[in-house]
Parts: sequence; C-alpha cells; structure tokens
Amino acid sequence: MANTGLITPSLAAQLKSIVGDPFFLADEENLNHYGHDETERLLFLPEVVLKPASTEEIASILRICHENKIPVTPRGAGTGLSGGALPHLGGVLLSTERLNKIIQIDERNLQVTTEPGVITEVLQNAVKEKGLFYPPDPSSRGSCFIGGNIAENSGGPKAVKYGVVKDYVLNLEVVLPTGDVIWTGANVLKNSTGYNLTQLLVGSEGTLGIVTKIVLKLIPFPKFDLLMLVPFASLEKASEAVSAIFRAGFVPSALELVEIDALKIVSKMVDSTAVPVDDSIAAHLIIEVDGNNMDVLMSEMEQIAELLTQFEAGEIFFADDAQQKAELWKLRRRVAEAVKTSGYTIEEDTVVPRAELPALIKGVKELGKQYGFHAVCYGHAGDGNLHIRINHPTIKNSHGNEEMTNALTALFELVKSLGGTISGEHGIGLIQKPYMKTVFKDANLYLMREIKKAFDPNNILNAGKIFDLTD
Amino acid sequence: MANTGLITPSLAAQLKSIVGDPFFLADEENLNHYGHDETERLLFLPEVVLKPASTEEIASILRICHENKIPVTPRGAGTGLSGGALPHLGGVLLSTERLNKIIQIDERNLQVTTEPGVITEVLQNAVKEKGLFYPPDPSSRGSCFIGGNIAENSGGPKAVKYGVVKDYVLNLEVVLPTGDVIWTGANVLKNSTGYNLTQLLVGSEGTLGIVTKIVLKLIPFPKFDLLMLVPFASLEKASEAVSAIFRAGFVPSALELVEIDALKIVSKMVDSTAVPVDDSIAAHLIIEVDGNNMDVLMSEMEQIAELLTQFEAGEIFFADDAQQKAELWKLRRRVAEAVKTSGYTIEEDTVVPRAELPALIKGVKELGKQYGFHAVCYGHAGDGNLHIRINHPTIKNSHGNEEMTNALTALFELVKSLGGTISGEHGIGLIQKPYMKTVFKDANLYLMREIKKAFDPNNILNAGKIFDLTD
Repeated sequence: MANTGLITPSLAAQLKSIVGDPFFLADEENLNHYGHDETERLLFLPEVVLKPASTEEIASILRICHENKIPVTPRGAGTGLSGGALPHLGGVLLSTERLNKIIQIDERNLQVTTEPGVITEVLQNAVKEKGLFYPPDPSSRGSCFIGGNIAENSGGPKAVKYGVVKDYVLNLEVVLPTGDVIWTGANVLKNSTGYNLTQLLVGSEGTLGIVTKIVLKLIPFPKFDLLMLVPFASLEKASEAVSAIFRAGFVPSALELVEIDALKIVSKMVDSTAVPVDDSIAAHLIIEVDGNNMDVLMSEMEQIAELLTQFEAGEIFFADDAQQKAELWKLRRRVAEAVKTSGYTIEEDTVVPRAELPALIKGVKELGKQYGFHAVCYGHAGDGNLHIRINHPTIKNSHGNEEMTNALTALFELVKSLGGTISGEHGIGLIQKPYMKTVFKDANLYLMREIKKAFDPNNILNAGKIFDLTD
Repeated sequence: MANTGLITPSLAAQLKSIVGDPFFLADEENLNHYGHDETERLLFLPEVVLKPASTEEIASILRICHENKIPVTPRGAGTGLSGGALPHLGGVLLSTERLNKIIQIDERNLQVTTEPGVITEVLQNAVKEKGLFYPPDPSSRGSCFIGGNIAENSGGPKAVKYGVVKDYVLNLEVVLPTGDVIWTGANVLKNSTGYNLTQLLVGSEGTLGIVTKIVLKLIPFPKFDLLMLVPFASLEKASEAVSAIFRAGFVPSALELVEIDALKIVSKMVDSTAVPVDDSIAAHLIIEVDGNNMDVLMSEMEQIAELLTQFEAGEIFFADDAQQKAELWKLRRRVAEAVKTSGYTIEEDTVVPRAELPALIKGVKELGKQYGFHAVCYGHAGDGNLHIRINHPTIKNSHGNEEMTNALTALFELVKSLGGTISGEHGIGLIQKPYMKTVFKDANLYLMREIKKAFDPNNILNAGKIFDLTD
C-alpha cells in the first residue's frame, strides 16, 4: 500500500543530521505508534518518524523532502478522527510534539503566541491564570495539540457562543512545503490586507504548510456559569427544542445533545450514575450559560427551562457545584471514546442549519435500517453539528468499503439537501475524501487543487488528504 | 492611461444583448459617475457600464470577457476608500446595483440570504424588524452595499464586540472570472470541509469572483445600549485608556476615538454643538455597551467611567435618549466625509494591537512634521484600527506621488514594527498596492498571485488591484 524505500540511506543521513539521532525513529514500535490516530481502525506505517524542535529544523526537512519528492505527513497529538495524520503514503511522519512552548501571553493586548505542540487544555489553563479565556475546547482537549486544532478548525461545546478555532487565530508562522517560512497576517483583530492566508491555512489539515507559531486572540474569562441537564422522551422533541432556544433570544455557552444509547455506554465505561438513563428517556440536552452576573444567568436558566416544557422535557437536573459540573462534562467528553470502544467505530461529523437537526436525525435512523447499521447521535446541537457513530455488525472501517461508502454518500446527500455539509470540526482527511464531490461542484474542487499546487508544487505535504490532486 | 478601444462593436452588441439596452451605458455622464469612488480625488473612465440583473447575466458577461480578455471592474455602491472599484484599466464597469433583493430572512435558523446590491442599513433594518441583528456597520452603512462590505471585509464601530464581516459570512454564491458559478461553502455555523473558499473570497476585493448571493449569520438583537462621550486633555492618555478598558475585563460594543481637530471639522459641517470642542480637549472616546439587562449595563458604564479617571478623563457626557445617541453617532459617522471635504484627502486605515495605539499616534505626528503634512486620527480604537487622514498643502492624491509614497512607506514600516498591518477594513485596492511589500515577504505575495491565477487565468477581474500579477 504505502510507498516504502523512498528514503535512501543518504537522505536518511541528512534528515538525521537535522533533528539529531534521538529524534530520528525507524523502529517497529514507533512506526506502529505513529502509524495510526483515532480514526476507525486504520494503520499506515511511515518509513521514518522525525521530531524536529524548531521552525528552522522543519524548514530544512521540508526543503530536502521537496527536492526529493518525499511524502511528509505532519502530526500533532494523533487524536484526529478523519485520518488527517495517517501516513498513508509512507515517507516521513513529522511530529510537532517538541514544539511545545507557550511563547508569550500578552496581557496588554489579550493575545497568546504559542508553538503548535502545546496541549489545548494546558494552553487554556495558562491563559486562565491571567483571567483570560481561549474558548475552543474539543472533547479531546486534555490530549490534543493546539496545532492540530488549527489544522482541523476544531470546535467543541463552547463554539455555539464563542465560535470555533478560526475565530481566534490572528496570525500564523508557517513553513511552506518548499521550506520557505512566512507569517500569514498580522497580530491584529481586523485585517483587510490581501487574501486571507491565515483563514486559508486554518482547516487546511496540514496540506498547505506546517504551522510553527500561532497567535490567538483571547477574551476576558467569564466569572460564572450554570449547567443543566434536560431529559426528553423523544429525540425529535429534544432536537426541536434546540432551535427554539435561540429563536427565543438566548445564546447558551454550550448546548449539547446526547442520545440515550450513547449515555448508557459512557456511564457504564466510567462507572457513573450522574445521569439518569431510564427507559422513558430518549435523549438529553446539556445546556450551559455563562457571564459575569449570576442573577442574570439564573434568570436565563429559568426562562430556558420554562421554554423547554413546551417540548415535553422531563425533570431538569441543575448541576449544583463544580464537582457535579465536572462529572457531567466528563461524561460528555468521553462519549466518543466510549462508543468507539463498544464497536461504534465509524464516525461522521455532519453539520446542518440547526433547525434542520430533527430532519437529519430522522434520516440517519432510516439509513441505519436500510444499510443494516446501528447509529447513535450526539454532539454540538446548538451549532447543528451532529456526530453520528455507526456500529455495523461486520464493517468496522468505512475507508475502502463500498457498501459503507454508498451509505455515507446517501447520508451526505441528505445533509446537503438540508443546507449542510460533511464536516463541522473533524475535517476531511483521508476517510471523508470520497464524499467531497457529493457536496462540491467540480469548479470548487478545481480551485482547491490549484491552491494546493500553488503552495506545494511537488505535492509532498499530506498529499492525498482532503482530495486527490488528480481524479 | 486606461486601455480604451478594447470593446469592439461586436462585443458591445453581445454585452448589450445580455443586460438589455437600458442597462448598457456609455455616455460621458455615466462613465464619469462610475469612474470614481470615494478614494482621494481619482478618476478612471471605463469604456462601458453594465448593470446586469442576475447571476446568469453576470456569468454570461464574464464568459465573454474571459474569452476576449476584457478587463472587468465590479462595483457596489462606490463608497470604497482604497480604489477597489476604480476601472483603472478601462473595459467593463460591472455594477451590482440591480441585484438588490433580500431573498430570505430565515428566522428558524437565524440567517439571511441576500443579493449583494442591498444597502447595508436596509439589510440591518429588515432583520431588526424580526428581532435579529447583523452587527457590521461601516460608517457608510446608509449608502454602501453589503456586497462591497464582503469584498472589503468591512468592520465599523460594533466590530470590537461583534466582529467584522468575515465573522458573519456563512456561504457565498460567486460567479468566477471564467463564468462558472459556485457556492463556496454551506449554510452552517461550523465547517471543516476543504479549504475555506468562503473566507478566501471575503476581503478579496472583487479580484477572485463576483459575489451574487450572500448567506449571513444573525444573532438576537440586544435589548439595550448605553453611550457615553469622554473627553481627554491628551491624545496619548485617551489611547492608553483604550487597552485598559479591555484589560479590566470589559468588552464595549463600541470604543471609538476621535481627535479634536476632526470633531471640530465635522461639528461645523453638520452645524452641531453636541460635542464640546474647547481648547482643553485633545480627543474624545465614544464608548457604548449593550446587552439585555439595563442594571448590568449601568454598572458596567459606571465602572468604566471610574477606571477612566486614572487617565485624566474630563467630564463625561452620558447620552440620555435615542436622539442624543443618534446625534453622537451621526457626528462620528460623518467624520470621514467632513475631513475629506476640508482637504484631508488622503486616508490610511492602519491597524495595530490595541495597546500599541499610543506609539502609532505618536509616530504619525512625527511623520507629519517630517513630511510636511497635517494628520487627524480617528477610528475604531478598541480594535486598534486607526484611520489617519492626511492634509498636505500640495499633494492631494497619494496614488502615483513619490513623496507621499515615501511618507506612507515609513508609516507602514512603523505599523509593521508594532505588529500591525496596512488595512483593517478598507482594503488595498489600487492605492495601497505599493505598500504590500512593506508588510509581506515575497513568498506571501507569490501565493496570492498564484491564487489569483487559479481563479482568473486571463487576469480580467479587477486586475491590478491588491497586487500586480508581475512585479
């Protein structure tokens, strides 16, 4: 499958001299470790793993790989769900784990400059100590890297109020596939100076350049938050309630939906009884509000709770203290891992306008019947971003499987008809590639390919991700 | 200067048949009208003005111009300040004024779909009637088009809390220079599906495509706002106060700075005594907070006022009612027009990290002494976005003037050294083009040119704006 033998002994020696002996790895254990991420059950071995420590080392590596047309797959923490970090063409696996310094927290300007290999939660905690807030918080925030979040344009529960990664990135230092180093923009809140290369890099999944420094906007940390858990007897009513909350003028800081089957699995895995899972319940909404005035928040929560009675909400559970909140969030954050372990190996990351959620969920269930799989739904309902985990009795990888590809094509045709698209926050990577033509015209894909060629004339950097250069 | 005689009688007949006789204009009055915008005192005549009524007509026009390599300059309302709509190469001036329908206000999903030729304020009022808010509000909002706002990635006073145009654009229908029509994305709040063509189009100043439909995110309209005007005896203290407000944890919905000379001019022009302009005052801050709870807003305003005493603020004026607020905002919005009429014809749109504003303002004054011009400063201080209007005794256009080009190069070198860039919201267009190399490396400009070539292989659409294809 993978092209092996691309890296000659002479090239290997050059690469080793750049990163130093301990950071040039080619043993079986390491190749296996860096050959998979959290995507389905896929494994692709690189020829060599490099762990550079600086922008300069990465530039030197890319210059050599560009000249010699060696595939390079950049990797953050390996928590991706679309196969973006899988070295499916062999060659060099370039880990950013040693670029792990927070360079500066600029309290005067409410900005932070960081290297890409910092764990997202570590970054969040560091700025929180200064009273500042970096909101995007993917479920994997305890292990994922901020650089990977940039690559995938990650979201998380807070996105519904605070936006996704792209809304916080001001400026990026990037090593281009040719080895040139640029800053994409400036450290400013507004910018109308040429094409927005910053936003082009965000979400480009490591195909256009390797991000080596990141300047992020920060905001004041809100003083208070309140959290409630709302059970519904019907999944449809739960999803209808979502858009009603916004139409009534509320903007929660989180609005998550979890189907009961997923909650049962995760409650069992973490041995928690925090959330009721009795048979009268089909789904829960997790609703958080935050701000600087507790009276206002209490009033908002009461009004939202009152509104939800129209959607046949069950008995609402208010998290009373930090511990209860943490317990609820822990359950929510571990859903993905729990259902994957239970056989739901195929994950989709659909996103639709939020009022179309009921139609999407209905469609998912119908497709499950038609194609013989069981699906559980959960995710960032406030954003219309629904994660769909699929448990098929025999098919565990969608990648390269014709039957599952047909099922997912049908799913994405539905999503498109609802005004939505393939991925809200996980990216296209390797495994969603076949569906790009379902949602885009040839002219869109042509433009993306030409942009890729402009950045990477020898097609070395994460080649064959998002799209193939030739169809 | 301009290439005339590009449009042969046969081509003219084809173009006329597409738009219809009344919308094909080649008389002197119209060519003069469409030959200038609000940029300095520049005039470039097109050969013909076309006013198509639909996506299809625009696609047909571009197909013909692409095949025959005819320059096409798209134009919204002509309120631009960087010369983006100036037909400096002659050819076709394509006005979007007939694409002026609001297509749908989607109250279920808090979105609006509109054509580009709708006046921004008309759009804002239409959604406000449904309790919804589209925040970006350039000073020209009473006359500019939403399509032009997309092209320039406009901001305005509300950007400091609510973000700029790019933060509201979900999806765009675009006619590419070849005549192909695409949608750039999907109608969703989160999107990690391929390169972000939507964000690439926003702020691309009509060089990559002509936007024909726009899907914007809306938010609930805040119920209340409070406005205050704060005089300062020193411009430096006023600008220092700006970043202090944010560092203290406040996020005003507007934070504007206006130097006293600018206020004197505008007060005289509109015959207003609403704002004190005595000699003890060097500058004012205009500070607005908004939200849904009046008590919270009152408390915020008091705390901000208290904080400002540390910066030697003078007597604060609180706008008591809607009329006083409107009067203050009218003054602020008309500053640009007033100072331009008074001889301040050259406008810069610098942006720096907000805590660097004092250094920028100091530098501007020094450059004025060095190069023999008088400058007044005003703008969106909360965003670090400072408009600098220059009155030179003899030089009224920077475009093509060597001395002013040297002065502005020095200005942008200062801006860059402060972490900032050329334009926060007005774009590069024609007149800021010479300074792109001051803030960008060759590799950045190379990528922008290659992107332009991918979209527009014959370089017909707003060619020679932002950058030249060959240097």
